[in-house]
Amino acid sequence: MRDDLASRLQALEDREAIRDLIARYGPLADSGEAGDLAQLWTSDGIYAVGGMGEAQGHTAIAGLIEGVVHQKLMQDGCAHVLSPIAIELDGDDAVAVGYSVVFRHDAGEFVVERVSANRWSLQRGPRGWQVHRRDNALLDGTAAARALLSLPVARRRR
Amino acid sequence: MRDDLASRLQALEDREAIRDLIARYGPLADSGEAGDLAQLWTSDGIYAVGGMGEAQGHTAIAGLIEGVVHQKLMQDGCAHVLSPIAIELDGDDAVAVGYSVVFRHDAGEFVVERVSANRWSLQRGPRGWQVHRRDNALLDGTAAARALLSLPVARRRR
Amino acid sequence: MRDDLASRLQALEDREAIRDLIARYGPLADSGEAGDLAQLWTSDGIYAVGGMGEAQGHTAIAGLIEGVVHQKLMQDGCAHVLSPIAIELDGDDAVAVGYSVVFRHDAGEFVVERVSANRWSLQRGPRGWQVHRRDNALLDGTAAARALLSLPVARRRR
Repeated sequence: MRDDLASRLQALEDREAIRDLIARYGPLADSGEAGDLAQLWTSDGIYAVGGMGEAQGHTAIAGLIEGVVHQKLMQDGCAHVLSPIAIELDGDDAVAVGYSVVFRHDAGEFVVERVSANRWSLQRGPRGWQVHRRDNALLDGTAAARALLSLPVARRRR
Repeated sequence: MRDDLASRLQALEDREAIRDLIARYGPLADSGEAGDLAQLWTSDGIYAVGGMGEAQGHTAIAGLIEGVVHQKLMQDGCAHVLSPIAIELDGDDAVAVGYSVVFRHDAGEFVVERVSANRWSLQRGPRGWQVHRRDNALLDGTAAARALLSLPVARRRR
Repeated sequence: MRDDLASRLQALEDREAIRDLIARYGPLADSGEAGDLAQLWTSDGIYAVGGMGEAQGHTAIAGLIEGVVHQKLMQDGCAHVLSPIAIELDGDDAVAVGYSVVFRHDAGEFVVERVSANRWSLQRGPRGWQVHRRDNALLDGTAAARALLSLPVARRRR
């Protein structure tokens, strides 16, 4: 019974840790903390942004934040707002799906810059839960973006 | 003491299950998985969309996703982004309130198509937590939409 | 071991209580429940809105909701949509960071009225977790807004 309680507690802690990890992405991106942001990923982690290729490893992922495109966005004023996520736990692996919406300040107004499907593959290791791979794709009507949202959910409900 | 821990754990698990259930709505809607989406509801569940009537039961709710309006939205590119929710647990019943924001891709840009108040009535049954009734209303200044947001919160704070 | 389980459970309950507290802000604001909204704060709590000064105490915070600016927004139709938050627990204190996005209904469409960084300082007292201070700042490119997002995250990752 005690073991049962402990394993149920562990599952909740895992979900909480994953939720917290993903909730840190936006604040780290929008405050420009490139090094801390990269540490959300494993050392061989991948951030695949649809249409912009893949960044692999901490240096490359930090480079996305340090690069001119993101720095210009920060100067304008931006918010990377991530939605609540649905999470599938599977031992030391997990998948989470949700959305990211980027708002940009432009001439005194806020515009919706990007709306993307997000699929996160996460792993538990010596440093706790980290992102192994994040796939983003603009929800612009393409089947590829919709596919990012469909996998883990379908797996669970069947 | 062990029973106390177990009941506290159960309450957290209930809240987590409800949060996860609601977090699945958007990804299922935007990937067009009508059948799986309908299974979020009980077999007699209702989805009441302000100004568009009520859909009751799995076939009718799946029909909202399979219908021409939603299919057109998916072709354009859309995201049904649901906010975090406030949850009131009451045994095998629960109420949750929050927001849904629908973004649509239009001529290379993203527009805010709809912003709605959401009130969810949930029930725990043999298949776990499911939606018994979801009420949506556009936040367009009408008192009915505001009322959806006010009930469970007021109940708790008094 | 039982104590260990109890303290782990407590930490999850604390995080859940804080998440729920913050999820109530939007629904209370958008349904105009000024008194209940103010009770989210401690009696000496502060709501500091960048560029608009600070409101301290329940009467002053309720006044923000009862004031003409907010009442006009409600008449137009509005949604104060708060993002998921990253939370740092430290005993009876906590810090949470996230975003708030205000949508306004305007001539049949929804516009993005404000996008702000939010930093919450929370305290546990006899009435449970309450907000001690909330700082908001428009993400308009100013360093002050970015700074609100950077603190607790940086503290944790080091």
